[in-house]
Amino acid sequence: MGGDYAPENVVAGALDALRESGGRFTVLLVGQRERVQQELDRYSPRHGCTIVDAREVVTMEDAPNAALKTKRDSSITVGVSLHRDGKADAFVSAGNTGAVMSASTLILGRLAGIARPTIGALLPTERTPCLLVDAGANVDSRPRHLFEFSVMGSVYVSSMLGNGNPRVGLLSIGEEDSKGNEASLEALRLLRESKLNFVGNVEGRDVLRGKVDVAVCDGFVGNILLKFGESIPAFLKAKFSAYAKKSFLNTLVMVIARRGRKAVLSELDYQEHGGVPLLGVSGVSIIGHGRSTPKAIKNMIFRAEEMVTRRVNASIEEAILNYA
Amino acid sequence: MGGDYAPENVVAGALDALRESGGRFTVLLVGQRERVQQELDRYSPRHGCTIVDAREVVTMEDAPNAALKTKRDSSITVGVSLHRDGKADAFVSAGNTGAVMSASTLILGRLAGIARPTIGALLPTERTPCLLVDAGANVDSRPRHLFEFSVMGSVYVSSMLGNGNPRVGLLSIGEEDSKGNEASLEALRLLRESKLNFVGNVEGRDVLRGKVDVAVCDGFVGNILLKFGESIPAFLKAKFSAYAKKSFLNTLVMVIARRGRKAVLSELDYQEHGGVPLLGVSGVSIIGHGRSTPKAIKNMIFRAEEMVTRRVNASIEEAILNYA
Repeated sequence: MGGDYAPENVVAGALDALRESGGRFTVLLVGQRERVQQELDRYSPRHGCTIVDAREVVTMEDAPNAALKTKRDSSITVGVSLHRDGKADAFVSAGNTGAVMSASTLILGRLAGIARPTIGALLPTERTPCLLVDAGANVDSRPRHLFEFSVMGSVYVSSMLGNGNPRVGLLSIGEEDSKGNEASLEALRLLRESKLNFVGNVEGRDVLRGKVDVAVCDGFVGNILLKFGESIPAFLKAKFSAYAKKSFLNTLVMVIARRGRKAVLSELDYQEHGGVPLLGVSGVSIIGHGRSTPKAIKNMIFRAEEMVTRRVNASIEEAILNYA
Repeated sequence: MGGDYAPENVVAGALDALRESGGRFTVLLVGQRERVQQELDRYSPRHGCTIVDAREVVTMEDAPNAALKTKRDSSITVGVSLHRDGKADAFVSAGNTGAVMSASTLILGRLAGIARPTIGALLPTERTPCLLVDAGANVDSRPRHLFEFSVMGSVYVSSMLGNGNPRVGLLSIGEEDSKGNEASLEALRLLRESKLNFVGNVEGRDVLRGKVDVAVCDGFVGNILLKFGESIPAFLKAKFSAYAKKSFLNTLVMVIARRGRKAVLSELDYQEHGGVPLLGVSGVSIIGHGRSTPKAIKNMIFRAEEMVTRRVNASIEEAILNYA
């Protein structure tokens, strides 16, 4: 029931995933049975899907922790509980981000050695993608938390993108070791002493340049940066369209180049790429954007499957011990 | 002597400004006399320029505070001192940002009611430009500092862009009043109680959308955001060029649309627009990018002139008393 277009986009995406998966997994659709069933009835075939009833719905306006307490029969709580009880191997939702984070952390618990689970978001760069951690799970992160984000980010990139030795950078206001705020300066020291492939401080401009594979920051910074980045395509579309309106020739040229512009801007539309993992919880929890399309839902399910089969969590627990 | 292309770009920009100004002001070029003179000799006419000798040069690698102590005869120290002594009405530099900030703050002093001077950077948006404060002068800003940035930003936009009632937003991780970190939550309270046209929390995506005229944050966040934004044109150029290489048709289309692409991307190239003001010091100090072009230097000089004639500092001192 999560997201602005639930259950329709969720059901459509789940069925797409099942179709493409060739029977590797099944999907439990958690939500108000009659509404989900009604949606499901629109498709054929629809095998591989089971509905699990959950009467309540956490809205985007609900305060996360309050929602967990008052709506115990929500699709989020029921879904995460199925995962905890071993009836599902992973949990995927386009619902209220804060509620999914809270439910996942409280119900699944944290991995050994992890104090603060983190959200990792893959950004496009001039080269290979860069994982931004923390993309919004925590504010006022302490140096130790920034260190944990670095380890989890490094393991995720290594396990999921096949990059054996990810370069980790700490986002700061200058490259020199003297640059930073109180928390980042102390984190820099921890990271310099660690066994991570740490390149030191990196600046805002280094992300899109692809200078590092993992860019580490507090979730307050990461969330603002992520959402700023997400708004670039709409900004450019507005600017190109204003340019096109200036003359007939401009209009013509912009129409001709439309496909190329779309191809490039879609790379920045990272909504489409399918959700962000909540790393550090004892399970697999993928959080999608409220406006997730069926394609995004499908990609989230595949990403969840991959996190399970690649045993990302086991690697995180190992790494947090070994990298310190 | 400041910047990667000094003194050549500085001299060229100063002469361009003088040419366009129609004698409204004169320029003191501060630096090693023979090097500046040599550069000046390449141009004609060159009246309106006076060289003030300063033997030392603060490099981009110098630590700001150390440079002030050890290089007392640098162009930065001498230039700012001329301003303090009333021999210049404003100071403009493309040199070491930290050194210009320190020299300006220590030599000029702060405005009444201001604890922390701030850097304001104008970003393009879908509508009118948005001033990002603090763009990097401070880290670990306290709530009162965020309030001061808001007042200074509001006055700057109102005085310089003629927007009588600028909308001020506090950058955060969600629009609700409950969202933020420790400092931003307390700043939100101060701003809600103030007489500013405060719209509340805004998110990273709201900046380019043009939702506010002033976006307020700690300098750690602002600097990372600013530099991330600065890197977008190069990123897009790389992506468009990769797209063009995919086929002959793509190449053709991209060549045809080149001018439009350049026009739009140049809007994002805010280096060109000419430096950022250090607000809150008792004087006018404009800091340019190390790679400042002659055009950027020229624009910095015009911006400095405007800050003087529009009496921005008097308005800040008045506002900080009245808006609280």
